[in-house]
Amino acid sequence: MSLVVIGSVAYDAIETPHGKRERTLGGSCTYIALSASYFTTTSIVGVVGDDFAAEDRALLASKKVDLEGLEQVPGKTFFWSGVYSADMNDRQTLQTDLNVFADFQPKLPAAYAKQPYLFLGNIQPTLQRGVQEQMSGARFIGGDTMNLWITHAREELLQTIKNWDFLLINDSEARMLANENNMRKAAAKILDLGPGTLVIKRGEYGAMLFRRDTLFMVPGYLLDDVFDPTGAGDCFAGGFVGYLAQRGFDLRNGNFDIHELHRAVIYGSVMGSFCCEQFGVERFRDLTRKEIDNRFEEFRRFTAF
Amino acid sequence: MSLVVIGSVAYDAIETPHGKRERTLGGSCTYIALSASYFTTTSIVGVVGDDFAAEDRALLASKKVDLEGLEQVPGKTFFWSGVYSADMNDRQTLQTDLNVFADFQPKLPAAYAKQPYLFLGNIQPTLQRGVQEQMSGARFIGGDTMNLWITHAREELLQTIKNWDFLLINDSEARMLANENNMRKAAAKILDLGPGTLVIKRGEYGAMLFRRDTLFMVPGYLLDDVFDPTGAGDCFAGGFVGYLAQRGFDLRNGNFDIHELHRAVIYGSVMGSFCCEQFGVERFRDLTRKEIDNRFEEFRRFTAF
Repeated sequence: MSLVVIGSVAYDAIETPHGKRERTLGGSCTYIALSASYFTTTSIVGVVGDDFAAEDRALLASKKVDLEGLEQVPGKTFFWSGVYSADMNDRQTLQTDLNVFADFQPKLPAAYAKQPYLFLGNIQPTLQRGVQEQMSGARFIGGDTMNLWITHAREELLQTIKNWDFLLINDSEARMLANENNMRKAAAKILDLGPGTLVIKRGEYGAMLFRRDTLFMVPGYLLDDVFDPTGAGDCFAGGFVGYLAQRGFDLRNGNFDIHELHRAVIYGSVMGSFCCEQFGVERFRDLTRKEIDNRFEEFRRFTAF
Repeated sequence: MSLVVIGSVAYDAIETPHGKRERTLGGSCTYIALSASYFTTTSIVGVVGDDFAAEDRALLASKKVDLEGLEQVPGKTFFWSGVYSADMNDRQTLQTDLNVFADFQPKLPAAYAKQPYLFLGNIQPTLQRGVQEQMSGARFIGGDTMNLWITHAREELLQTIKNWDFLLINDSEARMLANENNMRKAAAKILDLGPGTLVIKRGEYGAMLFRRDTLFMVPGYLLDDVFDPTGAGDCFAGGFVGYLAQRGFDLRNGNFDIHELHRAVIYGSVMGSFCCEQFGVERFRDLTRKEIDNRFEEFRRFTAF
């Protein structure tokens, strides 16, 4: 079943110890949609400028991503540039030009509002809430946020996530949101804020899923080479929610298989790992579903005891 | 079957955000033996001064640890003091008084030399080699090392581990030993040095086991409160090798179940997690095998998908 994704569509300049790219397709919405497209029909809501290249539109279209909600307006597309440290565990932002994204007001095409799955990429929480309120048939909605909103738009953020089925953030954001350093205690506090399912990404160390009665953990996939971690967290999100959409997962009817959520975390980890194998979105040009399923099985082998 | 453990027996002064202890039983040999004692008969080789307290000897004896190889000589027992950072991911050594440990020359009682399992705690590599060469019926031998020997006694260390069945170190030591930042590549280089099995501890992030044909990974156990991480890595070692000794694991006959090694990593993780629940060795005063097996099953639940 169909998934709607809201977020940024951007151009990135990236430098890692393996090389650099001056201008490559990026943005949270792009990564989430490309990743989810391997599992389900995906529709995006975003904005680009008149510099958005036909070949980038074509890449998304080649994955059958519905672009009706991708608005194109005069001006330049969101631009970000950053450089990674030698071990790639840190990165420094060199430049952020919001450009047309500064005035982004998500417009949901009528057909999108009836879709059952929604992933709200990291944008201002009030804008996220505006979108979710338009979704009339949602079965499973949730999204991401970031330190900026946790610190500077905390009340709006709390109002927004209160009604989410799931929240998907990284470990430092979880600690900041809960104001608690111990991860188990932080997770308990976040579940009290509304989302019944909390997924915490830990970068190379894997991911965890928390519900009141459940804890699931998976180690990170060990790559021979990490070329570029940009977008890995968003690809995780795309794999997680894309898999659940494919399965028709319905948390709200109360009669679901908890292992489906666990498998969704594995698919998220798989997609995040593929993302790091090449620069930007390049790995998605030739990645196949068979490779994805093979890596899922690899996760089984290296965690079985 | 019986396990022999070589290493330090010490007194520690420890400060963590949860409190402090001025003088508490510690040392790698102590932690490894206490942990392993839940799985198998354990014999230790170490040295203490004439200040070694009867109650500390009694704690080890209460776990049926064979103390024939614990030499007592005039002088003071090895003393270490350290303070942990607020998040307990770093610690600063305040004082290290080797005392009687400075002249430690491991003396293996005759009965020990016939035992099949040997864990060489972190001491000077040439001393480690001297012990392993006296073990006539070893089925599974290996041990630990540290940055000091990797840097300052590299050749002796390489000569020593060449004949080990397993090496058990932490991630930063693995990177230093292999001179390689990528963990998968570092592991491959270390396996080339001799040990057929490499276990890498990652602290709160869990552990990994590498063989030429195998990768196994487990996330760390999430504790509600980490009181004191001192000795957790040694307790991991005790659980790992203790479980294999209990099972009569025989790597050298080539006909073994790889999942036994995986389960040994889980038992190592379980023992490391219990160690952190109280100061020093205190958790081992009342810990039961039933609690250990329950936590092992908990690991199954939170990693199944």
